[in-house]
Amino acid sequence: MHKRDLNAHVNNLPIAPIGLIHTPFKQAAGTPIQGMAGQNADGVVELHTEYVAGLRDLTEFERVWLIYSLDRASGLQMVVHPYMDTPARGVFATRSPARPNHIGISVVRLLGIEKNQLLVADVDMLDGTPLLDIKPYVPAFDSFVGSRAGWYANKSAAEVVADDRFEAGKAETE
Amino acid sequence: MHKRDLNAHVNNLPIAPIGLIHTPFKQAAGTPIQGMAGQNADGVVELHTEYVAGLRDLTEFERVWLIYSLDRASGLQMVVHPYMDTPARGVFATRSPARPNHIGISVVRLLGIEKNQLLVADVDMLDGTPLLDIKPYVPAFDSFVGSRAGWYANKSAAEVVADDRFEAGKAETE
Repeated sequence: MHKRDLNAHVNNLPIAPIGLIHTPFKQAAGTPIQGMAGQNADGVVELHTEYVAGLRDLTEFERVWLIYSLDRASGLQMVVHPYMDTPARGVFATRSPARPNHIGISVVRLLGIEKNQLLVADVDMLDGTPLLDIKPYVPAFDSFVGSRAGWYANKSAAEVVADDRFEAGKAETE
Repeated sequence: MHKRDLNAHVNNLPIAPIGLIHTPFKQAAGTPIQGMAGQNADGVVELHTEYVAGLRDLTEFERVWLIYSLDRASGLQMVVHPYMDTPARGVFATRSPARPNHIGISVVRLLGIEKNQLLVADVDMLDGTPLLDIKPYVPAFDSFVGSRAGWYANKSAAEVVADDRFEAGKAETE
């Protein structure tokens, strides 16, 4: 084991929004789950202007990762009933927002960049979601086509939309 | 545009480590870049015991995402010289750790789970890296085989290892 103690790092990290993600989705209910299901939903990623220089070369990528804060998610649920399945699942075996740290990751298609705004497609996050990072999608790092997918196998997200079960103030009172 | 103001969220978010990632890599120099290149490197993800119930059903997945803090990275470099290329690139067009928020994402193979410890392969993070989240790898959400990959196209990470250029106290003084 590493000399670092498991409990040595309990404070919040210096992580703050670097922009906002604008999407058509005002509330969880009706929002597609993961980009696959929202193929026709366009969004705008508005980056703080101080970071524009960091966008150089990004338009050469067909897709990018958006890392964002699930800022309207309910508190931690260790076991959740995901949108796509009936049995309860451990939260780490799902992409549910009700996680210890409210961090979401989604692949979106990059349609273009205009100054500090990225035009993207296949969005699945709520309007006004705080942006934490943008990374290029690199198939050599990120694409594992046949990777065994547990309970997600043979399920399709394409027909599934979210409801309000993981929205703050909802799930915990049900 | 969403009614939220771009500058309304400037404070740190409540994001704190939920565990530690133990790997063979004590320093950036010599560490593989992304899991692809570190195929034979095994690691142990040590989760805070309070979160063990959230691991239910996870062993059914062949791979998982580890979301972690790049806690030994240098400060922000808006334009970086990545390990795999010579020209300077915008930081958001790279997977360099020298980003505004020090958040890393990597796909690892899940070999097994014993209580609060996940045995994983294909690790590429430094030993003692603070863990922020574990998510299942789901090809339907995450795998886009032919996605155009900008300057990464036709480059192989398999032969590349990191050096200390993005380590705190190094890059900024060079």
